[in-house]
Amino acid sequence: MKQAGIQMQRSSINPDRLLADIRALGAVGRDDEGRLARLAATDADRLGRDLFVQWSRDAGLDVRIDCVGNIFAIWAGRNGLDRKPLLIGSHIDTVIDAGPLDGCYGVLAGLEVVRTLRERIAEPARPVVVAAFTNEEGVRFAPDMMGSAVFAGALPAETALAATGTDGAVLGEELARIGYAGAEPPGFFRPAAYLELHIEQGPVLEREAIEIGVVEDLQGISWQRVVITGEANHAGTTPMSMRRDAGHAAARVIGFLHDLAHASSPPLVATVGCLALSPDAINVVPGAATLTVDMRSPDAGQLAAGETALAVFLDGLAETGRLAVSTTRLARTEPVRFDARLARMVEDAARDLGLSWRPMTSGAGHDAQMLSAIAPSVMIFVPSIGGISHNPREDTREQHLVSGADVLLRTAERLLDSDPEEPPPLIGS
Amino acid sequence: MKQAGIQMQRSSINPDRLLADIRALGAVGRDDEGRLARLAATDADRLGRDLFVQWSRDAGLDVRIDCVGNIFAIWAGRNGLDRKPLLIGSHIDTVIDAGPLDGCYGVLAGLEVVRTLRERIAEPARPVVVAAFTNEEGVRFAPDMMGSAVFAGALPAETALAATGTDGAVLGEELARIGYAGAEPPGFFRPAAYLELHIEQGPVLEREAIEIGVVEDLQGISWQRVVITGEANHAGTTPMSMRRDAGHAAARVIGFLHDLAHASSPPLVATVGCLALSPDAINVVPGAATLTVDMRSPDAGQLAAGETALAVFLDGLAETGRLAVSTTRLARTEPVRFDARLARMVEDAARDLGLSWRPMTSGAGHDAQMLSAIAPSVMIFVPSIGGISHNPREDTREQHLVSGADVLLRTAERLLDSDPEEPPPLIGS
Repeated sequence: MKQAGIQMQRSSINPDRLLADIRALGAVGRDDEGRLARLAATDADRLGRDLFVQWSRDAGLDVRIDCVGNIFAIWAGRNGLDRKPLLIGSHIDTVIDAGPLDGCYGVLAGLEVVRTLRERIAEPARPVVVAAFTNEEGVRFAPDMMGSAVFAGALPAETALAATGTDGAVLGEELARIGYAGAEPPGFFRPAAYLELHIEQGPVLEREAIEIGVVEDLQGISWQRVVITGEANHAGTTPMSMRRDAGHAAARVIGFLHDLAHASSPPLVATVGCLALSPDAINVVPGAATLTVDMRSPDAGQLAAGETALAVFLDGLAETGRLAVSTTRLARTEPVRFDARLARMVEDAARDLGLSWRPMTSGAGHDAQMLSAIAPSVMIFVPSIGGISHNPREDTREQHLVSGADVLLRTAERLLDSDPEEPPPLIGS
Repeated sequence: MKQAGIQMQRSSINPDRLLADIRALGAVGRDDEGRLARLAATDADRLGRDLFVQWSRDAGLDVRIDCVGNIFAIWAGRNGLDRKPLLIGSHIDTVIDAGPLDGCYGVLAGLEVVRTLRERIAEPARPVVVAAFTNEEGVRFAPDMMGSAVFAGALPAETALAATGTDGAVLGEELARIGYAGAEPPGFFRPAAYLELHIEQGPVLEREAIEIGVVEDLQGISWQRVVITGEANHAGTTPMSMRRDAGHAAARVIGFLHDLAHASSPPLVATVGCLALSPDAINVVPGAATLTVDMRSPDAGQLAAGETALAVFLDGLAETGRLAVSTTRLARTEPVRFDARLARMVEDAARDLGLSWRPMTSGAGHDAQMLSAIAPSVMIFVPSIGGISHNPREDTREQHLVSGADVLLRTAERLLDSDPEEPPPLIGS
């Protein structure tokens, strides 16, 4: 990989500026009890958007909004959007009772990286764009990752704009109301590469005391609902041998999935998060059980094998337990492999900065999942304290927030560095 | 056992009269949709009580009500309550959306037995009493088996009368309102023996095609609530090895109890009827699980051993799974052994009548549980179609209803038979 021209001094963004921005955005959209919620296209979301737009303009960037409300803060450089830009992005909408980092960290670090670059170099040959995608969380409007899906051409804009929220509102009308129904068409530029910095939202980096996660892939997700029907019977008068206990069958499914996931290589995670018994009475053998199965793997074959193994197990369970078992598919995405060359660049950046790093798989969905379909993409993770996210206790040490932004900066520098004299190691014009 | 004096002709009650009574009482207390509910001390319960009282008076019996509303229909015989009576009883209160047989069958069969006896013999030396105990079901007022508990001295009448219902009503006031706050003190007579005929409410007799269950004992019941606390985590980002999954732990408890009960001798039944996961989200590893454990055995040692085995298992589960586990005792009764000599008399009666029979354990609680503390007691079961009870589909074939009443009649005849020339085989004066 090309090394010439890389600035070898300690590459760093301005920590105070980044942390102040995170705090300021995190203060927007809180209720009287201090609970944070900036659901997509609400008044609270507008306040957060307005702040990001103002900061972007203050940094000298050109702000454009597309038809589904995605915000693009553009440093046009010498060639404007005639050259494919380096895109850095994430989202600033939140869940209900959220923490301040999920999504916002990546957007604000992107802005801070551009500010830092502007202080160091003159107009780059390749534009740099910072994006805040609409409705990544999917709390108010489905599906999630909506804005990036429209930008990447995976979802028609009309479909997104017609989405009806949990409160009955229509997204298109809400965007117009808050002033973010923009003029740009979907995918009005095509990025040369996409970088997304994010908190891990899991415990791995913290427990292993590693500073940077180089996210090589994103798990495929399989969601199913399983309904087991047996026979409700009196808990006192029905001998064990005469029972058709749907609750015990559900317990066997949980045990099977647990053992399957533990034994899997490549890794598979499996979770039964919801379980309801019927009639749900202390003295009645459960006649029915409804449970959800969440299976994820970065390996498409492993995920499919896990689904098959579960189906075979359920067939056997139905037969031996004299039960009826039905399954419904609720969601299914294939795994995504991020760009290996970009991942090596992130590793190099971490190494150059003296930071510990490890390759990782993202267990959650991110806008990068959509962008990877149209551009070389990679994600960078920093540790989450206690692995907690989607929660007011979501937090990351300031030192880690700064280190992550520094890795993002250095990776961006490398991607811009070889321009314009020769093609950069990765991206074409 | 003494055989002399037994009438060897086919002993039978009047089937049409019994079945008509069951139908008539089962029609009382139905709502517009035909759902049956005669909860204790409601207006519907009053209508059912009035019917039983009227039929008892029509049969020439003396009706007395005690202070907690228990109804006693007395055939005084030659000596009145100066001799300990033979008591036949059950209850006529119901659950919500009930069937017509639970409890009512035993009371109405008792009345029919007395009618039949009156047609056959003159005044007996020993009185015969048919009882309908107040609030056996415990749906509106706790505890269940309330009237028989007061009669047997296990519960102070004042406590029972002060019970507040699920609707806020006070039992004592409700009994006065419906005209069943009687004058007799608790336990105003002491029975010589107690017989209770009941539907099985389980599947055993039907599946084995046996007509009569000779109930030798009644299971002890242990109810516990188990709360397991682990850690809620993201289902995608938390590796299997880092989870503290309360749902998987609950599944292990269910599996443990299932295996324990299957392997137990003397028999133990164990049921997890209620299970709730928290936060109950498809993509979150359960952080907490709350489940109920219902364990029952006719053997006191086995029941205690089951409780101990569960406690040891939960301790190990907490330690290996890094979980907090707490248990709360919700209810506990010791097993009851019915009178072996009375059980042999029921067997003899079934055999004399050419009916198939088997010894049984009652898995459910019954008024006989309370009566057995003050008098030799036994229960007689008849098959439940599909094992179903506490349900509008609760049913028993008419032939089996008649056979059960015939066994009750023949057993009563034997108990009265040796009077007054010599002591009966079982009961003293």
